[in-house]
Amino acid sequence: MITSLVTGGAGFIGSHVARHCLALGHKVIVLDDLSGGFEDHIPAGVEFVEGSINDVALLESLFEKHRFDYVYHLAAYAAEGLSHFIRRFNYNNNLIGSVNLINLSVLYKVKCFVFTSSIAVYGAGQLPMLESMVPQPEDPYGVAKYAVEMDLKAAHHMFGLNYVIFRPHNVYGENQNIGDKYRNVIGIFMNQIMQEKPMTIFGDGEQTRAFSYIDDVAPHIANCVNVPASYNEVFNVGADKPYTVNELVQVVADELGVEPKVTHLEARKEVMHAHSDHAKAAGVFGANKNVSLKEGIAKMAAWAKVVGSRASAEFENIEIEENLPQGWSKKEKAINS
Amino acid sequence: MITSLVTGGAGFIGSHVARHCLALGHKVIVLDDLSGGFEDHIPAGVEFVEGSINDVALLESLFEKHRFDYVYHLAAYAAEGLSHFIRRFNYNNNLIGSVNLINLSVLYKVKCFVFTSSIAVYGAGQLPMLESMVPQPEDPYGVAKYAVEMDLKAAHHMFGLNYVIFRPHNVYGENQNIGDKYRNVIGIFMNQIMQEKPMTIFGDGEQTRAFSYIDDVAPHIANCVNVPASYNEVFNVGADKPYTVNELVQVVADELGVEPKVTHLEARKEVMHAHSDHAKAAGVFGANKNVSLKEGIAKMAAWAKVVGSRASAEFENIEIEENLPQGWSKKEKAINS
Repeated sequence: MITSLVTGGAGFIGSHVARHCLALGHKVIVLDDLSGGFEDHIPAGVEFVEGSINDVALLESLFEKHRFDYVYHLAAYAAEGLSHFIRRFNYNNNLIGSVNLINLSVLYKVKCFVFTSSIAVYGAGQLPMLESMVPQPEDPYGVAKYAVEMDLKAAHHMFGLNYVIFRPHNVYGENQNIGDKYRNVIGIFMNQIMQEKPMTIFGDGEQTRAFSYIDDVAPHIANCVNVPASYNEVFNVGADKPYTVNELVQVVADELGVEPKVTHLEARKEVMHAHSDHAKAAGVFGANKNVSLKEGIAKMAAWAKVVGSRASAEFENIEIEENLPQGWSKKEKAINS
Repeated sequence: MITSLVTGGAGFIGSHVARHCLALGHKVIVLDDLSGGFEDHIPAGVEFVEGSINDVALLESLFEKHRFDYVYHLAAYAAEGLSHFIRRFNYNNNLIGSVNLINLSVLYKVKCFVFTSSIAVYGAGQLPMLESMVPQPEDPYGVAKYAVEMDLKAAHHMFGLNYVIFRPHNVYGENQNIGDKYRNVIGIFMNQIMQEKPMTIFGDGEQTRAFSYIDDVAPHIANCVNVPASYNEVFNVGADKPYTVNELVQVVADELGVEPKVTHLEARKEVMHAHSDHAKAAGVFGANKNVSLKEGIAKMAAWAKVVGSRASAEFENIEIEENLPQGWSKKEKAINS
């Protein structure tokens, strides 16, 4: 029997990947520290281990016990905008944790290491973003993801560890953490609407992203281990069509059946436009469903109405407060309240 | 008075930079954990603090007490070839430690953060290596150094922290750790000669490097804070002319007055040829002395004869033994002895 480790399997993309791996007939072990995920998102039929990718002793015991065929590494704290202000946490979590898994995957001769990187690696270069470009990330989150990509290539060259790297593009859908105010703009909007608060937009809302529905992303990640042509390659994955945040606001409001109310906050220092080319993934994995924004948002909205709004926790260990975007500072909150 | 922190100031390049900073009139605090450095290499007149860049509480107390104008960050475990086998250690030491210093340099408004990166960031691309190329490092050491470079650019963009990045090229000279069998080929050769052992060459010895004498490197690093045109720029620094390892063997033997004896070991997976262009540094800092290999080796040999040979310690925490180069494995040693 094929045995797979899915890190971050209680999280958004990870819980979907775990479900698809079960459907492929894998025995699935989910490792998640529940820092951003939820136990009730873990699909029935997997073995759940609560713990961190930074706990080397725990990782060693899991690799020794299960002799994984595949490692799907999705655990991450994917808050790109916040990463400037939590540098040490970002690199510990997103790079050192990944390296712990790479070491053990070499030692235990894992057949393929599947890694979800991010379009954050590209930085503000030419559009559309293409896998043939040499990445130039511009924030600590993108730097950490790109460092893991480079480390995987080095591990392949030195030890023959196979990898598949995905760079998903602003993914949304059921099981997303809608209670995290630092990330996941669609979840944030839904949470704000359900709390009858205005939706908060950084800047004028004319920044564009190709928001990608989870079903256009997670099946490829799960199935890539069965596609030898994908081995030791990097793939953009997600939707083709970019929308402005202002357009997004309208769709989300429509699907939740409300009139859009909006508050504009000061613009963040972030990439203004982003969309990726997906020809390479289509060539290897076949064409996407390319779920439309309206259709995907409708599905996620139906789910969000059932689960309801969530309180948004403060990130407790901000390392640098200077230049924190509006609404993110605890000090600011203390002043305003 | 100008106050500067020099991390790794008991190490090779760091001890020279600390000396040049003193000559520039700085008050100099050296932080070094003595893992690769020696207390007697620290120049007289600096304040020495024994400790690690991974000890955040210690760093905080130093920044709070001294309010550094400049941070010269030279602490690193610069064993490129070994980095494949000590991934976690490499990233903890070379990236997380650096990020601890970047965080505090932002918080305490340091005027300039001077970072010694490495030509390891370039990987096996086109020669000569030029600052205008987008790096593509191929080993964990190069990945860690490049990640710090990218993080510094992000910190400059977000917080205005000024930096100067140097990429030195195979530096040698007085105060080098000649007792580390994993790095510093010239030191290794001198140590082997003084122990009447053959010099060990990986592969055929036709790999080339532009070995750089310390006096062509350290003065620029110390003085760059006074050269505004160098701020927020990256510089190759070192010698122009590449030599083969076989040529190097002859020069080292000549200057130590012995006939060269050589043992060839299995080739390592490493970059075959490397030399850098230094026009950018020359344009900003002025022309180098360009100390010849013969002259530089003569100076270092004179010093090495005085200090004598050193025992080479085993690196205790190898994370992956597979494919370790010949002579580096403890297991192998146990089998052979």
